[in-house]
Amino acid sequence: MKPQGQEEFDGHTAYDNMLTGELDSGPCSGPSPDTDSQGQGVPKDPLLFIQLNELLGWPQVLEWRETGRWVLFEEKLEVGGGRWSAPHVPTLALPSLQKLRSLLAEGLVLLDCPAQSLLELVEQVTRVESLSPELRGQLQSLLLQRPQHLIRTTGTRPCWGSAHPRESSHDEEAPLKEQRQNALRHKLPPGAEAGAVLAGELGFLAQPLGAFVRLQDPVVLGSLTEVPLPSRFFCLLLGPPTLGRSYHEMGRAMAVLLSDPQFQWSVRRASNLYDLLAALDAFLEEVTVLPPGRWDPTSRIPPPKCLPSQHKRLPLQTQEVKGPSAQRRARAEDRHGHPQHTPSPELQRTGRLFGGLVQDVRRKASWYPSDFLDALHPQCFSAVLYIYLATITNAITFGGLLGEATDGAQGVLESFLGTAVAGAAFCLMAGQPLTILSSTGPVLVFERLLFNFSRDYSLDYLPFRLWVGIWVATFCLVLVATEASVLVRYFTRFTEEGFCALISLIFIYDAVGKMLSLTRAYPIQRPGSPAYGCFCQYPDPGGNESQWTRTKPEDRDDILSMDLIADHHSLQDLGLVNASLLPPPECVRQGGHPRGPSCHTVPDIAFFSLLLFLTSFLFAMALKHVKTSRFFPSVPTLPGRDWLVSSFGTNPWWLSVAAALPALLLSILIFMDQQITAVILNRAEYRLRKGAGFHLDFFCVALLMLLTSALGLPWYVSATVISLAHMDSLRRESRACAPGEPPSFLGIREQRLTGLVVFILTGISIFLAPILKFIPMPVLYGIFLYMGVAAISSIQFTKRVQLLLMPAKHQPDLLLLRHVPLSRVHLFTAIQLACLGLLWIVKSTPAAIIFPIMLLGLVGVRKALEWVFSPQELLWLDELMPEKERSTPEKGLEPECSFSGSESEESELMYQPKAPEINISVN
Amino acid sequence: MKPQGQEEFDGHTAYDNMLTGELDSGPCSGPSPDTDSQGQGVPKDPLLFIQLNELLGWPQVLEWRETGRWVLFEEKLEVGGGRWSAPHVPTLALPSLQKLRSLLAEGLVLLDCPAQSLLELVEQVTRVESLSPELRGQLQSLLLQRPQHLIRTTGTRPCWGSAHPRESSHDEEAPLKEQRQNALRHKLPPGAEAGAVLAGELGFLAQPLGAFVRLQDPVVLGSLTEVPLPSRFFCLLLGPPTLGRSYHEMGRAMAVLLSDPQFQWSVRRASNLYDLLAALDAFLEEVTVLPPGRWDPTSRIPPPKCLPSQHKRLPLQTQEVKGPSAQRRARAEDRHGHPQHTPSPELQRTGRLFGGLVQDVRRKASWYPSDFLDALHPQCFSAVLYIYLATITNAITFGGLLGEATDGAQGVLESFLGTAVAGAAFCLMAGQPLTILSSTGPVLVFERLLFNFSRDYSLDYLPFRLWVGIWVATFCLVLVATEASVLVRYFTRFTEEGFCALISLIFIYDAVGKMLSLTRAYPIQRPGSPAYGCFCQYPDPGGNESQWTRTKPEDRDDILSMDLIADHHSLQDLGLVNASLLPPPECVRQGGHPRGPSCHTVPDIAFFSLLLFLTSFLFAMALKHVKTSRFFPSVPTLPGRDWLVSSFGTNPWWLSVAAALPALLLSILIFMDQQITAVILNRAEYRLRKGAGFHLDFFCVALLMLLTSALGLPWYVSATVISLAHMDSLRRESRACAPGEPPSFLGIREQRLTGLVVFILTGISIFLAPILKFIPMPVLYGIFLYMGVAAISSIQFTKRVQLLLMPAKHQPDLLLLRHVPLSRVHLFTAIQLACLGLLWIVKSTPAAIIFPIMLLGLVGVRKALEWVFSPQELLWLDELMPEKERSTPEKGLEPECSFSGSESEESELMYQPKAPEINISVN
Repeated sequence: MKPQGQEEFDGHTAYDNMLTGELDSGPCSGPSPDTDSQGQGVPKDPLLFIQLNELLGWPQVLEWRETGRWVLFEEKLEVGGGRWSAPHVPTLALPSLQKLRSLLAEGLVLLDCPAQSLLELVEQVTRVESLSPELRGQLQSLLLQRPQHLIRTTGTRPCWGSAHPRESSHDEEAPLKEQRQNALRHKLPPGAEAGAVLAGELGFLAQPLGAFVRLQDPVVLGSLTEVPLPSRFFCLLLGPPTLGRSYHEMGRAMAVLLSDPQFQWSVRRASNLYDLLAALDAFLEEVTVLPPGRWDPTSRIPPPKCLPSQHKRLPLQTQEVKGPSAQRRARAEDRHGHPQHTPSPELQRTGRLFGGLVQDVRRKASWYPSDFLDALHPQCFSAVLYIYLATITNAITFGGLLGEATDGAQGVLESFLGTAVAGAAFCLMAGQPLTILSSTGPVLVFERLLFNFSRDYSLDYLPFRLWVGIWVATFCLVLVATEASVLVRYFTRFTEEGFCALISLIFIYDAVGKMLSLTRAYPIQRPGSPAYGCFCQYPDPGGNESQWTRTKPEDRDDILSMDLIADHHSLQDLGLVNASLLPPPECVRQGGHPRGPSCHTVPDIAFFSLLLFLTSFLFAMALKHVKTSRFFPSVPTLPGRDWLVSSFGTNPWWLSVAAALPALLLSILIFMDQQITAVILNRAEYRLRKGAGFHLDFFCVALLMLLTSALGLPWYVSATVISLAHMDSLRRESRACAPGEPPSFLGIREQRLTGLVVFILTGISIFLAPILKFIPMPVLYGIFLYMGVAAISSIQFTKRVQLLLMPAKHQPDLLLLRHVPLSRVHLFTAIQLACLGLLWIVKSTPAAIIFPIMLLGLVGVRKALEWVFSPQELLWLDELMPEKERSTPEKGLEPECSFSGSESEESELMYQPKAPEINISVN
Repeated sequence: MKPQGQEEFDGHTAYDNMLTGELDSGPCSGPSPDTDSQGQGVPKDPLLFIQLNELLGWPQVLEWRETGRWVLFEEKLEVGGGRWSAPHVPTLALPSLQKLRSLLAEGLVLLDCPAQSLLELVEQVTRVESLSPELRGQLQSLLLQRPQHLIRTTGTRPCWGSAHPRESSHDEEAPLKEQRQNALRHKLPPGAEAGAVLAGELGFLAQPLGAFVRLQDPVVLGSLTEVPLPSRFFCLLLGPPTLGRSYHEMGRAMAVLLSDPQFQWSVRRASNLYDLLAALDAFLEEVTVLPPGRWDPTSRIPPPKCLPSQHKRLPLQTQEVKGPSAQRRARAEDRHGHPQHTPSPELQRTGRLFGGLVQDVRRKASWYPSDFLDALHPQCFSAVLYIYLATITNAITFGGLLGEATDGAQGVLESFLGTAVAGAAFCLMAGQPLTILSSTGPVLVFERLLFNFSRDYSLDYLPFRLWVGIWVATFCLVLVATEASVLVRYFTRFTEEGFCALISLIFIYDAVGKMLSLTRAYPIQRPGSPAYGCFCQYPDPGGNESQWTRTKPEDRDDILSMDLIADHHSLQDLGLVNASLLPPPECVRQGGHPRGPSCHTVPDIAFFSLLLFLTSFLFAMALKHVKTSRFFPSVPTLPGRDWLVSSFGTNPWWLSVAAALPALLLSILIFMDQQITAVILNRAEYRLRKGAGFHLDFFCVALLMLLTSALGLPWYVSATVISLAHMDSLRRESRACAPGEPPSFLGIREQRLTGLVVFILTGISIFLAPILKFIPMPVLYGIFLYMGVAAISSIQFTKRVQLLLMPAKHQPDLLLLRHVPLSRVHLFTAIQLACLGLLWIVKSTPAAIIFPIMLLGLVGVRKALEWVFSPQELLWLDELMPEKERSTPEKGLEPECSFSGSESEESELMYQPKAPEINISVN
C-alpha cells in the first residue's frame, strides 16, 4: 500500500504534465483511458521550478534579488507591495527573445556540467577568455553573494532572506532555515528540480556575458533558489548597462522558455549549442503574437481555465510510446467532444438473455472487496456527512411533496424509511454504488397522476399502486433481460433537455401555484375592511341561537359588508349579554361559540408566507455556490397503517391486470430517468476504474420497485444531482499544484461504504421527524421554485430561447453560433419549444398519464430532425445519434473543413468545457 | 454652422486616432487639453478599412470570399454560422509574419501606383517576369472575378454578394447595390479608405507571387471590397498549395499590419521596399509574445476597454507638432492619474478681494448667449425628460426626509417649490449651469440636528433657521471674497471618502431604524394571540362608562393577557347591551366608542411594509444599471403658513446673534459639500470648453441660502449624482466607431436651457402632490437603504476594509496592493475607520452639531498622515496634497524606479480607469 498523501503526487499532476506534454491536464481535458498504465514505462522528466535572480543596485550596493518565479505561470515580485503577484500568463517582447538567442549563441553553453556545488559551478562559468583575472574574481564573489528572496514561510508573515554578503565557504552552501520553511516547497512534487536564471547589468563588464549550464547531476546550490531544490539548469545573462532593462527582459525570456514543456524537453536532451538554439527557434515558431496597438502589454492575463492541448507539441519519442491507435482515438474524442456517446464497453450488446446483467455482475464481483477497503480514507467521512445532509434534505422536501401529491397517503416518514431501505439495498447490490437513490421529480409527477386517477374512480390507492409496482418490476426485468439499456445511446441532449425543461416548468408552476393558494387560504386584511370583529358567545338561556344565522340584512345604504350588517343587526336584535372577547380557541374551551367574520381568519400569514417564500428562494439562489443546503422544510404525515400493503384492498381483482397499462408508462419513465442518470454518472471524464453496471443497476431498481410497492414506500430511481455531489465529494485530486494551475483530477474513491453509512444514518433520522414539523411550507415552496429555476437555467435550450429574443449584435459568442446559421438555430429551438408545449398540454389534460410515452416520443422527434438538419448542424445543436456516428465518414461530417480552418474548428470543439452537465433531473 | 450629424465625425474618433496615434482614444484616457486646436494644422491620415479576400475552392470552383475584416479589431467570417464574429484582438503566429516578410521582400512593391481601375491595377500587378502570358491571362481573369461578401444591409437580413463570374468590363466596376446598402458604411467616417488583401493557394502557380501596391490616388475598385470605399492599398499573396493554410495566415498578418497605426503611418510615407520592410520590423519589435503552452491561440480576446497609449509609438513628425512641453504635461498627467488635482486655471488665487468671482463672471459672460443657442439639439429634449424625472424623484424623497427631520415643518411641497426656485435661479446665474441643485444628505442631517436643538430649547424653528441662513450667507460671501475655493485642493480622496462613508452609514442606519420603528408601530399579530376583539360600544344610558377602564384584573390563572382579562370581566360585570362589530371609524361615525385591544391595531402592515422595503431595495439594486429610477415615494406635508418667515417669531432678539455659531458650522459643511461636488463636475476628463466658475457657483449658493431661509424653503447645494447624470445625458459622442471600439467622447453640450426647463417643470409639478401621498413610506426607506449601500460600496475605502478580512491569497489584484505593503494598507484603513468611528460617535452625542468641524478635521488628519506614510504610499492610497505635488522631485517620488520597471509602473497608473468617481454624495 502507498504511504498516505503520497498518491496525490501520482497520476496527472503538473509533474506528469511536464513529460506527457500536458495531454490530460486540468478538468477540461477529455478522458485518456489507461494513460497511467501505459505511461509508466517511460521515465518522467521532473517538474522544473524556475527562478529569476536580478542584479540590482548598480553602481552603489550590488545585490541579487529574486524578482520572478515560474512553474507553469509567472509570479512577479511586487517590490512596492512586498508580495508575490497572482500567477499570470507571461508575456514577452519579441526583441528580448531575439537578444537572448544571440547572447546564447555567442556565450558559453555547458551541457552535462559535472559541478557539485555553487563554487565549482561559478568557477566553470567564469572561465571565459574575455574576462581578466581581476574581473573574474570580482564576478565570482558577486555570483557567490547570497540573493534576497521574499519567502512566505509556513507561518503567515513573509520574511526577506537575509542579504548580508557571505564568505564563499562550502559550509554555507547548506540551505537556509527560511528556505527549508518555504511554503512553496510543499506545493512542488518530490523530485522537482530548479532552474536558476541570473540576469542584470554590471558596469564593469565591457561586453555581454552569457552562459547556459545543464548540470549532469542536479545539486542544491546553497541559497541560490528560494526553495532548496537540486538545480538542473543555471543561466547567467550579464552585460554592460543598457536602456530599458533589457537584461531583466532577457532573463524573463529565458525563464519563460525553461517553463515551456517542449523547450524543456528538448533542452534536457540537447547535446550541443545548436540543439539549444533549435529548441528556441521551435518555441518561436509556436508563440502567439499580439499586435502592439491593440493590446496593452502590461496587462496581466489570468491563467486560463483550460490549458491548450499539447497533442501537436508532443516530442516524437513520447508520442511513439502511446502508439498510433491511442493517438487516433484521442483525436477522435477531441473532435466529437462528447465521449460519453461513444458506446462504452458496458453498453455493448451481448445478444444473450440477461447477458448484460451477467457481465455486469461478473465485472463488479471482482471489485467487491475493494469497494469496502477503498473507503478507508478520512475524505470518506466528510463525504458521508455532506451526502447525509443532502439526502435527508431531499427526503424531507420530496417526502413533503409526496404527501401533497397523495393527500397524505405517503409522507415524510415513509420517505425517510424508504430512502434508508432502498438506498442501503442499492448500495450493497448495485453496479454503480456511488449512486444515491431518490424519489425524483418525474416519478413524483406520475405518482400524482396515478393518485388522482385512483381517487377519481374511488379506487383503493395503495393496493392499486402495489400492482402497478409489480407490473413495473416485471417490465423492467424484461428490459434487463433484453439488454434494453444499450438503447440509452439514443437519448441525446435533445431528449435530456426536453425532459429537464418539462420537469423544471412543473416545479416552477407548482411552487408559484401553491404559494398563491396559500394567500387565498389566509387572505390579506386590508386596513378599513370591516372583517375584524369576533365575539365569544356563551350559551344564552333566553335568546334563540339559531336566529343568529337566519337574520337577513335590511338596509344596505351606507355600510359596505353584508356579513357585518347581519352581525350588527342580530346583535342589536338579540340584546346579547353573554359575550366576551376571548380568542376563539379559548372561547371554545370555556364552552362558548366564536361569532363574527374574523374569528376564522388569521392575519399576517399571507405576507409572512410570501416573505418566507421569497427569502428562501433568494437565499437558495445566493447559496448556489455554497455546497451544503441548510433547509429542512416539512409536513410530516402520520403512517397509521400496516407494514405490508394488502394485495387487493377494496379494489376489484381485474384491476391488478389493468394496472399493467399505467405500469407500462411508468416503466418507460423509470427507464429513461434511471438510464439517463446512469449515463451521466458513468461518463468517461470521471475516470472510474471499476466500470459501470447499467444492467445491474436497472435490475436493482426493478427489485426495489417491488419492495417499495409492497411496503407502500415511495418509488426510487437514481438521483443525478445528489449522486454527482457524492462523486464530487469523493474526488481524488493532486495536492501538489503549480501556482495558477488548478488541481488536477485523479479519479473517484469508488466504494460502497459511504452510501451505505449515509442510508443507515437516514434510517436513524426517522426520529428527527417531530422536530421537522415546525418548518413552514412557504420555505419548501421557495426551494422548489429555486430548484426549477436553477435546473431550467442550466440547460442549453434556455440559452437558445434567449437567443430568440436577442438582436444578433448582442448575442453571446456561443460556439454553436459560429457554426450554425442563426435561422437554423431558431428553427431547432422552435421545434423544441413546440415539443415542450405539446408535453405541457398533454400533462394538463386528462390524458396526462400517457406523458411518459410522449417523452419517449422526443427520441422519435429527434430522429426525424435528421431529415431537417444536416449532421454538421446536429453535431453542434445536439449530438449525433449512434448509427450516424459510425457511418458518417469524417470528411462528410465537416464540410467546411475544405476551406475554413479545420485546425481551429477542431480545437474549438476540443476546448469546449467537458465539465459534467447537470441538466437532466432536479432532484 | 455645421450640418447636423456631421460633428460626430470631428474630434476624437477612430479616424482621428489613426493619425494622432490614439493619444486620447476612448473614455479611459486622460485629458488632452486643446489637442483639437493644436492638431488641426496637420493633415490627418484617413481611417483604413482592411478586408481579406481569400481564394477558396481549389481545385474545383475557384472563388474569392471575404473571410476577415479589420478597422481596429478583427472580425472573422463564421462560415458555418453565416455571420461575422464579434470584434476581437487579432492574434498571429510568428512564422506567418516572417513568411510574409520574405514574400514581400522578393515580390513586387508598387508605391504610388497610378492605376485608376481594378483592371489597370490587375494588369500592373501581374506584369511579373515569372508568369507565362497564358498564366498571366488566367490570373487576371481570376483577379477580376467578383468576390463573395457577407453584407449586412441596413435591413436585418444578411445577403451574400452574388458570386457568378462576371465580364471584366469597365461598366461593372461601379459598386453593387448591396455594397452601397452595406450598414458598415455608415459606421465609417467620410474620407475613409480601404485596403484589400487577396490571399490564397493556387495550384497552377509554380512559385509564390507577392505584390504590395500603394495607389497614388485611392479609387473604388468595383466590388472588390464590401464597402465601396476608395482603395489605397492592395496586397496580393498567392502561391502553390501548402500545409496549414499558410497563405490565409499571411493574408491575416498583412491585414493586421495594415490595421496597426504606426505601420500604416510608415507605409503611407514609404518610398521604397526597404521602408516597407523597416516598418514591418518596427512592428515586430513591439509585438507582445505569449508562450505556446500557456495560452490557447484559438481563443478570441475581446477588445480591451482601454486601448494602450500610443505615446511612445508616435511617429516623430506628429510628436513635434505637439511640442515638448505639451508632451511633458501629458506624461505628468498620466503619471499622477488624478488630473483634477493639478490646480486648474479657475483655482489660481488672484489675491484681490472678490478677484475669483470677478474672473468667473468675466469668463462666463462671454459664453452667455451660446449657453442658450447650444441647447438647440434634440438630445437636450431627452436630457430634460430624464433629469426632470430624477429631480422630482429627488425632491419627493428628500422632501419626505425633510418632513421627517423637521416634524413636518418642511415637506414635499416646500421641496418642490424650493427646488424649482433655487434650481432655476442657479441655472440662470451660475458658473457651471450643468449643476443641478438639491437638498443633499449632509445638509439634511445638519438641519435635523438644528431642528432637534430648537425643539429642545423651545425655539421658534423657522425664524431661528432664517438667522442661521443669514449668517451662513454672510460667511459664504466672506469665503467668496477671500477666494477660499482654492482650498478645495486640500480635499483629497481621504476626505471625500470619509465624508461619503459617514453619509452612507447615516442613510443605512436611518432606513433600517425607520423600518424597525414601523414594525413596532404596527405590531405583528401572532396566530393564537388574544389581541383580536374589538367592540363598538354605544353610549350606555344606565352603565357607568368610566368603570370600563377602571376595572382591574382579578385572576390570572389560565388566561394570558392582562388587557383581555380586564375586557372580559368588565363585559361580564357591565352586562353590556349596546355593542356591535362595526369597524372603529364607522363606530365613531355612528356615535359609538370602539372598545377592545385590537381596535387600534391594523394587521398585515408590518410584513407588507417589510416586503415593500425589501423589494424596493432589491429592485433599486437590480435597476442599478438602468438609468431612470421610477420610484415616487412621499409623505406630503401641508404648508399652512405665510410666504415669508417672520424675522424673530417668539424667539428672543439675541438668538439672531447666537445663530452665527451653528451658521459657522453649516458654512463649513456647505463649503465642503458644494466645492467637492464642483471639483468633480469640472474634472478635466469631461472636456468642458466653457470653463468652471467655482467662486461664482459658491456666490450663487450663498444668495440662494438667503432666499430659501427667508421663504422657509429647504437649503440647497449642488447634487453630485444628478448633475453627473445631467452631464452624461448631454454627452457628445462620435457615432462613427470601428467595430469593437467604444464610441469616443467629444464633450458635453454645455448650456443653461435644459436645467432651466427642468426646474420650470418641477415648479409645475407642485400640482402632482395630491397623487404622491398614495406612495408608501417603506418604498422610500428601501430606496434610502439602496442609496446608502450603493454609495458606500462605490468607494475605495470599502474595498480596503474588505481587504482587512481577506486572506492575502484571495485578495483581488488591486493596483495599490502591487505598490504598497499590505500592513501599510491596513494601517491606512484602520486610521480611516477610527476617524469614521469618531465622527459617528460625535454625531450620536449632544455635541452632534459640531460635526462639520470634525469633517474639516479629516483634512488635518490627512495632513498628519504625511508623517506616517511616504509620499509614494500616499500617492497610491490617496492623492498627494498640493504643496507636496509641487515640491517633490520626480525621482524622489518613485524610489522603486531605480530597480523595478518604472516603465510598467508608469503605465499601470496610466491605465487606471479615470471614469468619474461618484463617491462623494448620495443625493
